[in-house]
Parts: sequence; structure tokens; C-alpha cells
Amino acid sequence: MIRLNNDYCHGAIPEILEALQTTNSEAYAGYELDEWCERAGSLIKEAAACPDAAVHYIVGGTQANVALIAHALRPWESVVCADCGHINVHETGATEHIGHKCETVPARDGKLAAADLRAVAQGYAESPVSEHVTVPRMAYISFPSESGTVYSLAELEALRAVCDEFGMYLFVDGARLAYGLAASGNDVTLPDIARLSDAFYIGGTKCGALFGEAMVVVNPALQPYFRNSMKQAGTMLAKGWLLGLQFTNLFEGGRYFEIGKVAVAQAMRIKAALAKRGLLAEPDSPTNQQFALISDTQLTSLSEACIVEFEGKGADNRNMVRFCTSWSTTDAEVDAVVAAIEGLPE
Amino acid sequence: MIRLNNDYCHGAIPEILEALQTTNSEAYAGYELDEWCERAGSLIKEAAACPDAAVHYIVGGTQANVALIAHALRPWESVVCADCGHINVHETGATEHIGHKCETVPARDGKLAAADLRAVAQGYAESPVSEHVTVPRMAYISFPSESGTVYSLAELEALRAVCDEFGMYLFVDGARLAYGLAASGNDVTLPDIARLSDAFYIGGTKCGALFGEAMVVVNPALQPYFRNSMKQAGTMLAKGWLLGLQFTNLFEGGRYFEIGKVAVAQAMRIKAALAKRGLLAEPDSPTNQQFALISDTQLTSLSEACIVEFEGKGADNRNMVRFCTSWSTTDAEVDAVVAAIEGLPE
Amino acid sequence: MIRLNNDYCHGAIPEILEALQTTNSEAYAGYELDEWCERAGSLIKEAAACPDAAVHYIVGGTQANVALIAHALRPWESVVCADCGHINVHETGATEHIGHKCETVPARDGKLAAADLRAVAQGYAESPVSEHVTVPRMAYISFPSESGTVYSLAELEALRAVCDEFGMYLFVDGARLAYGLAASGNDVTLPDIARLSDAFYIGGTKCGALFGEAMVVVNPALQPYFRNSMKQAGTMLAKGWLLGLQFTNLFEGGRYFEIGKVAVAQAMRIKAALAKRGLLAEPDSPTNQQFALISDTQLTSLSEACIVEFEGKGADNRNMVRFCTSWSTTDAEVDAVVAAIEGLPE
Amino acid sequence: MIRLNNDYCHGAIPEILEALQTTNSEAYAGYELDEWCERAGSLIKEAAACPDAAVHYIVGGTQANVALIAHALRPWESVVCADCGHINVHETGATEHIGHKCETVPARDGKLAAADLRAVAQGYAESPVSEHVTVPRMAYISFPSESGTVYSLAELEALRAVCDEFGMYLFVDGARLAYGLAASGNDVTLPDIARLSDAFYIGGTKCGALFGEAMVVVNPALQPYFRNSMKQAGTMLAKGWLLGLQFTNLFEGGRYFEIGKVAVAQAMRIKAALAKRGLLAEPDSPTNQQFALISDTQLTSLSEACIVEFEGKGADNRNMVRFCTSWSTTDAEVDAVVAAIEGLPE
Repeated sequence: MIRLNNDYCHGAIPEILEALQTTNSEAYAGYELDEWCERAGSLIKEAAACPDAAVHYIVGGTQANVALIAHALRPWESVVCADCGHINVHETGATEHIGHKCETVPARDGKLAAADLRAVAQGYAESPVSEHVTVPRMAYISFPSESGTVYSLAELEALRAVCDEFGMYLFVDGARLAYGLAASGNDVTLPDIARLSDAFYIGGTKCGALFGEAMVVVNPALQPYFRNSMKQAGTMLAKGWLLGLQFTNLFEGGRYFEIGKVAVAQAMRIKAALAKRGLLAEPDSPTNQQFALISDTQLTSLSEACIVEFEGKGADNRNMVRFCTSWSTTDAEVDAVVAAIEGLPE
Repeated sequence: MIRLNNDYCHGAIPEILEALQTTNSEAYAGYELDEWCERAGSLIKEAAACPDAAVHYIVGGTQANVALIAHALRPWESVVCADCGHINVHETGATEHIGHKCETVPARDGKLAAADLRAVAQGYAESPVSEHVTVPRMAYISFPSESGTVYSLAELEALRAVCDEFGMYLFVDGARLAYGLAASGNDVTLPDIARLSDAFYIGGTKCGALFGEAMVVVNPALQPYFRNSMKQAGTMLAKGWLLGLQFTNLFEGGRYFEIGKVAVAQAMRIKAALAKRGLLAEPDSPTNQQFALISDTQLTSLSEACIVEFEGKGADNRNMVRFCTSWSTTDAEVDAVVAAIEGLPE
Repeated sequence: MIRLNNDYCHGAIPEILEALQTTNSEAYAGYELDEWCERAGSLIKEAAACPDAAVHYIVGGTQANVALIAHALRPWESVVCADCGHINVHETGATEHIGHKCETVPARDGKLAAADLRAVAQGYAESPVSEHVTVPRMAYISFPSESGTVYSLAELEALRAVCDEFGMYLFVDGARLAYGLAASGNDVTLPDIARLSDAFYIGGTKCGALFGEAMVVVNPALQPYFRNSMKQAGTMLAKGWLLGLQFTNLFEGGRYFEIGKVAVAQAMRIKAALAKRGLLAEPDSPTNQQFALISDTQLTSLSEACIVEFEGKGADNRNMVRFCTSWSTTDAEVDAVVAAIEGLPE
Repeated sequence: MIRLNNDYCHGAIPEILEALQTTNSEAYAGYELDEWCERAGSLIKEAAACPDAAVHYIVGGTQANVALIAHALRPWESVVCADCGHINVHETGATEHIGHKCETVPARDGKLAAADLRAVAQGYAESPVSEHVTVPRMAYISFPSESGTVYSLAELEALRAVCDEFGMYLFVDGARLAYGLAASGNDVTLPDIARLSDAFYIGGTKCGALFGEAMVVVNPALQPYFRNSMKQAGTMLAKGWLLGLQFTNLFEGGRYFEIGKVAVAQAMRIKAALAKRGLLAEPDSPTNQQFALISDTQLTSLSEACIVEFEGKGADNRNMVRFCTSWSTTDAEVDAVVAAIEGLPE
């Protein structure tokens, strides 16, 4: 059965499996102090044009978020995000578990708007009871967002400006970064993200690796002791070179960027098919996630061709479902899915 | 200057000061294991008709909330409250600091509606990713609410029904309980609150005591080890009898209920004056807190007569201000404030 | 019955009760923003010769410890203390509850020795796995210690030197500070403590107040946002002036220092009686706490005259008990207790 | 260069790499809800003779410890361990970070003795201030211990008896379980561990897998919501099948047990060589970790042949070093190391 329910249902790009095989008899230093991590760090810093950043490797996204937030914030500080932010709704309260409040604003097309961030910061600055509320000190965004949308360069720069004005950090969750950078119409580059954020991570799990995220700590003030925070969060992999090796293979020859383009191209074919049938849901997504609103009958029909993710009930009691392509999605799979969409009952 | 900005700007009812004086040369056991705490507990359990409850004394409201929430919830569980809930917006993230998420719904007249609580609980029950979100396990309400409104008996019973259906606790923050019970039109009694909640506290700080809140743990499942949670929260007063003595004096002869009536009566006079001038803000409050929307000029004028609390800017850039009476508010003070309101410029 | 089991079984010095009575009809600003807190702060800063310190008022000792530790430490940092340290053994894990490890060394006469602190700091500095252990960043001591002993000026200076060398904070828990400063042979002054520590608190609960501790934050780096940490710890008293008023009365005319002397003088009489009978326990205490090792028969006999605190079983299955004088201990009480000690069976 | 400094410096057993290759084009459900996890669970439950246990897969040891401890303990409860316990000294305070105290006793040959555990539990039960201390509620041990020693069946049963008597959980960290079960003289079986513990985990990272630990929750009371705790701890791997696949391959045909035997046999050869030279350190280790005390000159010499782990300075300023074999250690490597030991200068 074709799985399009998420972008983490396949293994890894062939180069990674080959490298694991080739190096299996080698012995490496532990805890990311090996040559692969060193090499991957160089490639990433070069690709992101941030030579002075510190690059670390983390097993999964929740840990990446928790480790960075716990590391950066003081106890009385909170993180601002859109209400649909992953840290707010899909991490079983991990951010609160380690002591911090997620201060939310309604998402606009899945994104945190600079105006909304400013309102929170300004509200705090003008609060007559400022010691009785948490201090908004970090803005958390996903690029692309949970809805598949991307921030324009102007939007990112506006967020950065608010952060600069109010002394806040900007942290970018890039679990699907490859697919955001490859989005049609996207005008944001990896160096832009490095330049405009205090820290961000480059998703591997969903973008070609077996597992792993590369955390890039750009702001020098956040660099010291980050390895301590990683270990405390339980996310310092003993065999750290497994992560370095994967990111080396993802960034050598710019594979990471190529992977993204392929997945997005496949998603665009599905999007076109959905649009043609009038099933495409808002907001418009230029990335690998496409959302549709379909009837129960249509869902039953579609499920014979592929597995999609049920997101909940939408308007008219229709079903919001997600089609998610990835680096592994094949032409044949998309052909079949497009045909299934075209053949859906009214 | 007359202070009506809050209900914690005066000392205590005379009986309490006298008792402190009388007993000052006595020696007592520490940590609430004294005869005063025993006596107050009996009086409270009798007044609330909950003979099997456990009564404890806590210094302040934030500690009361934190100690009970930390005590009752498991790490993956959250507390549901109205977005204006005290734990959500006025405790510097204390609930998150000890690891729990506040899951909020928009307040309706300052209150958490049973329908909204049910939607959260139902949403969790139907979640396709139930392990990736926190489990809503407690409903937190204030009686009266932050807006001065009170829950009707039917509303409380509806909340209880949702809690029963979904296995949730109902926790009632009664920091201003005396003023809620005395509200005009209120049909909820102290025994009702004990009967319908798993735990609640009876505010002393704002209702006649120098300081202190009486936590009534009704649900037997929440009783064991609560003293450990108190100590861990830093809220087990070494000289616990100071709290027992105060609550004994508040509940002997039903003083607690009388205090509430006096304060509410004074508030009603202010409310009438505000209404007459068309300055009263929504929602309608039957308790000791009255909110008004006044212009800058009016605020300047009013400030010559009394101190009110500025709550922020409202419609038409007018100022939302709070008038707060208490057990200590005198007729003369209210006479002066009413006159000031009547004399406000247009 | 005479209570000598602790130093928090009586109310407050008469001046405090009088001041509460006198001011009961006054109205004050909340949250320590009143004139009493201002006045007490001035008196304390003058007495401690630290004009640039920030003074705050906290209800109890556990909260004082928790608020300061949570405020000062980053998540990966630990606090070093003697194994008998109050934070380690008498606060129900409150320090760990808010995320920090207590790193302990064996107490020497109840105290943390500079050599032991240095060994911990040096051990960390030389650790081959420094990211896998917590960073010792604060030394916590009590003055006087849990055993009633005091640090000499040389000992305090040695601790400070270690802290300076390794970039650590020195935090002094002064829950019984009055009795330490008044100890026979003590060569440490309040200005010494202010000069040598980053933060310390002046105990009120055990030293003449109804309740309350005055936190003196000397290190400017620890001053910002401390009120936020207080609120988050639930220890910002709404009626903060109650604390300011008490500390004003304790420090006006140097009462705090006089109180200490009286209590210590009474303790010395009990100590002499115990020594004469060969019952005095190690280590030698020059303060208000005296420890004795007595047989079951002797404990039964003693208990007819006064209540002492049972601390556990000691050598020869004898009972370790504590005699604790305070500002409220009278000559008549000590006469009776001394007589009882003299009359104990062999 | 031969690496014997740890047992996590090589990849994985060939069967695992082959399986990764073979399945790379397959698509699986996420979050451990796949057929590999199901299959591995069956194999593990069969091998451990605990058909009603719940088996989960976690990426690394620190997360396994943190997730289980956070899941099992209430806020006022602590975990008892030997002072050399991994959670106490090598996890950057992760246990305290999520709120729990490690209550330590001196290790005996690297192990927690039942008598010491009983003393802690009894001490709490008899404490006159039981609400002021944490409640010891879990015993944490490693099998084998950090020193390479193993518990005898009698020792494990004695720990269980104490836990039963005082209502405590027994949690076994089996990061090196394969090597403990294969220890010469070991009389403990995997079913014994399952029968005597409330939860334990089977180390994969150090025992043949690329990464991953299998948590076996035996006690039914600890089974509900464990997946929530995993997600909250950030340790629910999106591509969970990668873990299931590895543990399936480790347990099929009893490979896990064979791996252990090979590594221990290699370690015994190194041990014999060290003993012959009189360099073997205490305590005696029957597992894959061997410790030696060698001079600086000897360390320099040894380092030409292999990398060992420096553990710190021991008696006579000699260097405590660790030789660590694993499933990947070859005869040739051991031959070379033995020769190097034999050739060490005096």
C-alpha cells in the first residue's frame, strides 16, 4: 500500500545506507567528537554561510526543541508561537514539562505573524503587572509551517526586527526544511535562515536521513554549555558519528536541496489533481504537505489507493486529510494517487 | 487616600489581631499540627458539610494552586481553564514551572463553560494522536471569576458532570470565595462547592485574614501525601497555628459569610453609581469587583478621590479600571467614591 | 508545658504585634511596593553595609532557598552543600523539584569546608566527561549550621576564595542568623556576610518575627527579574507590607542583634547544665541550638519538664535531642529546664 | 588504532545492517506501531518469560531512565541508587531536571546492597519529619553495574524483598545487559530480571545495535500512558520500526545472548593478562569492562597499542583505565592488546 500519511515512513537515501555499511567495521570516538560530525559541521556551516555557528546533532525534533528552549530560557521566560505550533500541540507538553510556558497567538496560514509577535512583546512591555506574567523571550516558528506554508523573506525579516527590538531570540524548527527551501515561490535561502535566527535546526528524519536533526546555534551567547543541555535532555547520542555520517551524506554535493525539490515536485502533482477536483483545503501550501477536505465516501474510495493522514473533521463534516510526499516518493506512486483522486466519487 | 484598587490592601478583622495578641505568649506545635488548625478544620468542614475532607492551610493563592496541581496531576496531564484564569495569566508561569500545561478556552463572562470543557475533553478522547498531546485531567475555575462573575449552581453541576464523564478533577480557586457566596443572585452554597469539587480553597488573604488560604481536599484520592506536596511547594508554614487561628476566627459565628455581605453591599453602591453614569463595563458583576470604562479625563478626576486599578486600554481607548471593595471598606469611603463618580466630567 | 523543641513555637516580639495593631486601618500598596518594605530595606542595607544590594521579603525558608536557586542557576548547574544541608534533607526535594541537583559533601561539624568545596569544583574542572555531569555553580551554607555551629571569618573567606576561583556563587541561608551573629566566639559580622556572599537571607520566622525572611541579593548580576522568580515560586506576598513592617521593627534600634544575644545566653545556661552531666553531644554549638545524647529513662524524665525535639538514635542507642532557645525563652523556663537536667537519673 | 575505551564505538551486527538495506524501500507506520516492533516485542517477552509485559523502544539510556522515572514517581518521591549510579553521576542531572532526587548510598563493589536500601526505606518509615523529606519509592540498579560487577540471584531477590516490604519499585538499567547475563559465574537469567523487577531495559546501543534500548514494563500499574511519557521525554522515535527491526534481529535465534558471550570471553583474556601483571583493579569484574591501575609510563606505552578510557587518578597517583570489549571486538585486537599488556614496562 502506498503511504502518503507522513514523510517519515521510509528509511534513508541510498548513500546513507551505503556509508553505514562501509564504515561498520570502523571505530569512532563517542558523543559527536568524531570526524564525521566535524565534516558535516563544516558542510552545513558552509551551506548556511555561518562559519562561526556551532553545529550539533540531535536524534529527533521534540528533543531538539526541548534542548534548545531549556538551554536558552530562564525560568520566568516563555516562548511565543502560533497556536498550531508543534511545541504547543504535538509534543505532549514537553516544553512545559521542563518548565516553560508556550504563549500562543492565532496562526495566520499556519504562521506566526510579526504583528502578532509584536503585540505580545508590546503587551508585556506595557504590562502593569510585569512580574506576574512570564517574559516573552523567544519566538518559535517552523519553516515550513505545520500547514505546509513558508515564510517569505520579508516575513522572516519582520520577525527578526521584532526580536531585535524587544530582545527576543528567534528559533526556527526546520524539521521539514528541505521541503520549505524547495517550495515554489520561496525566496528564503539557508543563509537567510542562519542570518535571521539565533538557532535553527535542519531536519534529517523527514528529509532523507534514517533519523537525526542538525542543530545550528548561530548566536554566540547560546553556544556555551549546549552539549550539557543536550546530555541533560537525553539527546547526546553515544554513537554520534551515525548522525555526522548522515548529514555529511545529505550535504555533500547539495543532496539535501535536491531531495527537497523532488518531493515538492511530486506534491505539486497531487495538489493539481486535488485542485482540479475542488478538494484542496486552505491555506495554499507550496511544499510537500497537501491538505484536502473530502467526504466520507471519498475517503473510503481514496483509502483503496493509498494511506493518508486523517487530521480531523472540517466544514460540512468533511474529513481533513494530509498527503505527504518525501524524498522517497516515486513517480509510480504519484501516478496511482493522482489517478485515484481523479476517480473519486463526487 | 482611599484604596479601592484591590482587596488586599488592609490588615485583618479585629478579632484576628486580638487573637494574635492574646496568644502571643503561648507555645504551639509547628507545621499545622496544633489545636488552632484542628479547630479551624472542624469549623470549615462543618460549614462546608464535608466531614471527611482534609483541611490544610497555605500562605497564598499561587502556592495553593501550584501545590494542588502538582499534587494531583501526572506529568503528561494538563489543567483546563478559561484564558483569563489566574494560573494562566497572573502567576508568572508557576504551573508550567512545575511541569504542567494550562490548556485554555476563551472565557465566557470570565468563566469556563461546561460546553467548552466538554469540547476539550471530547477532543482529546477522539484525538488520533492522543499520546502526542497532554491529557486534560483537571478543570480549574475561580469562584468568583477574575471578572467578578459567579457560576450558577446549574453551571457548576454541568462542569461536574463533564468531569465525571471524562474522569477529570474539578478544582475551585476561592481566593475571593466570601464575596462570591455573598453575591446578589448567587444560588451556590459552600456545601455545594464541597460537594461538586475535588478540592477547593477558601480565600483568607482577600477576605478578612492577614494572610492565608484554607485548602479543602474533598476527594479522598487526593488526600494522601498532600502535606508532602505542601512542603515541597515551600508552603508549609512553620508557625502553622497563625493560619489556624485566623481561620478559626473567620469561621466562628459565621464571620466569613458576614464579611462577604458587607463588601458586596458596598460594591453594589459603587456599581449603581457607575451604571447611572453609563460607565459600567461588561460583564455584569454581582460581587466585590466592579469594572468601569472611563476616559483619561475621568481617570484623572477619579484619581483625586481614590486609587483604582488600571487594567488596560479598552474600547475607544478608554481605560478599564477596577473598583474593589473588601471586608474593610467603610461607608465613608464609599460615600466619597460615589460622590466622585457622580462628579466625573463627561 | 515549656517548649524548647524548636525556635518557631511562639508569636513575635511585642513591637511587631503593636505595629500590626496600629496600622491595621491603614491601606498599603501590594506586593512589597510599600513604604514599610522600603524602610526595612534601608535599615537592612545600612546594617549590612551593602547600599547597592536589593532586599526582598519572603514568607519562609524553603521558598527563599528555592526562589534564589531557581533564579541563579541554569538547568545544567548544581548547588554544592554539606550533606546535612537544609535544602538536601529537610525540604522534600524542593530544589530537585524545580530542576537542580544538590551535590553533597560530608559535613564537618555541620559545615561545608572550603577544601571540600574546592575538591568538588576541581573535580569538575578536571572531569574528562564534563558535559555528562552537572556544573557546580553555587555553594549553599547555613549560618549558623543545622548543628548550631558557625563559620569563622577565615572559613567564610576561604569559601569565598574558592567561589571566586571557580566562578561560583556563595549563598548563605540565615534562617537563624541572629543566633549565629550572637554566638560566643563568633568573629563574623553582618557586613562580612554581605561582603562575602552573592546573596543571603536574614531569618525572621525563627528570630522574632511572626513569619518572614529578608533576602538580600548582593551580586548585581542576580538582581534583575528576582521579583519574577519570587512570584513564580509563589512567594510574593500580596500584603507585602506585613513583612516590611516586621523587618523594620526587627532592625530599628538593632533589636535583631539584641534578640540573638538573649537567646544564646539562655542556651549557654542549658549547655552548661548538659555539660556538667556529661550529656552534651558533638559538635560543640555556641548558638541557640544545643544537642544532647540521653537514655530512654532520661528522656522520659526530661519530658515531664519540657518538650525537646527527638532527632534520632545515636551511640549506645541513646536519644539525640535538641534544646532550642529563642527570643521568647524566659529565665523561668530555663531555670526549670536546668533543674530538670540536673535532676535526670543516671 | 584499536578502540577499547568503550562499547559504543562500532556500528552494528551485520544482520542489522542487512535488514536496514533490505527494508529500505518499504513503508511503515510511525511511532512504534509497526510490525517490526510487534515482532521484537513478542521475541523479548518470550525470552524474558513475561507475556503480559509492555515493550517499548527508546533511543538511548539517559532517555530510558528519565522516561521511566518521570513516569513512575510522584513529585515527592525519590529514587535510591548507589552513589556511582549512572543516573546520579553521568546524566547531567537529567533526573533532577525533571524533578526527582537521587538518594544515594555508598556502592558496594559498584552495587546497591539490599541492606543499604532497607536502611534508607526504614529510615524514611521511622522519620519523625516524614513530610519534610522525599519518599524513597524506587530502587535503581544497573545490571551489570558501572564497575562491571553483577548481582547474584540472591542479591536481586533480597532487593526485591525490600521493595515488596516498603512498597518500592525496582528498576533495572540493562544498558550492558548482554554482558551481564554472559558473565562468568552469573546465576541470573533474563526471566529472573523480568520476574524480580517492575521495569527494566535491554541495552541495544552497547550490545550489537546501531542504537536503541528496549524498555520492558512488567508491572501492570506502570503500563498505562507510558507512551505519553516517552513522547514527553522526546524519545518516541518517528521511525520506530528502525528500533523494532534491530531488536528483532538481536533476539532472533538468541543472538543477543551469543553476542554477550563473545565479548565477555574477549574481556577475560584481557583480564588474565592484567592479573598476570598485577595491574587489575578492584572490584573483580566478570563482564566486558575490565579496570586497571597503571603508571603514567605504562599508560603511555599502552596508548601505542590501543585507546583505553581514563577514569581518573587512583592510589599512588596511578591511572585508573578501562578496557571495554564489545560484540565487535576481534581476536586480533585482543591478541594485540594482550601483547601490549605483557610488554608494559614495570
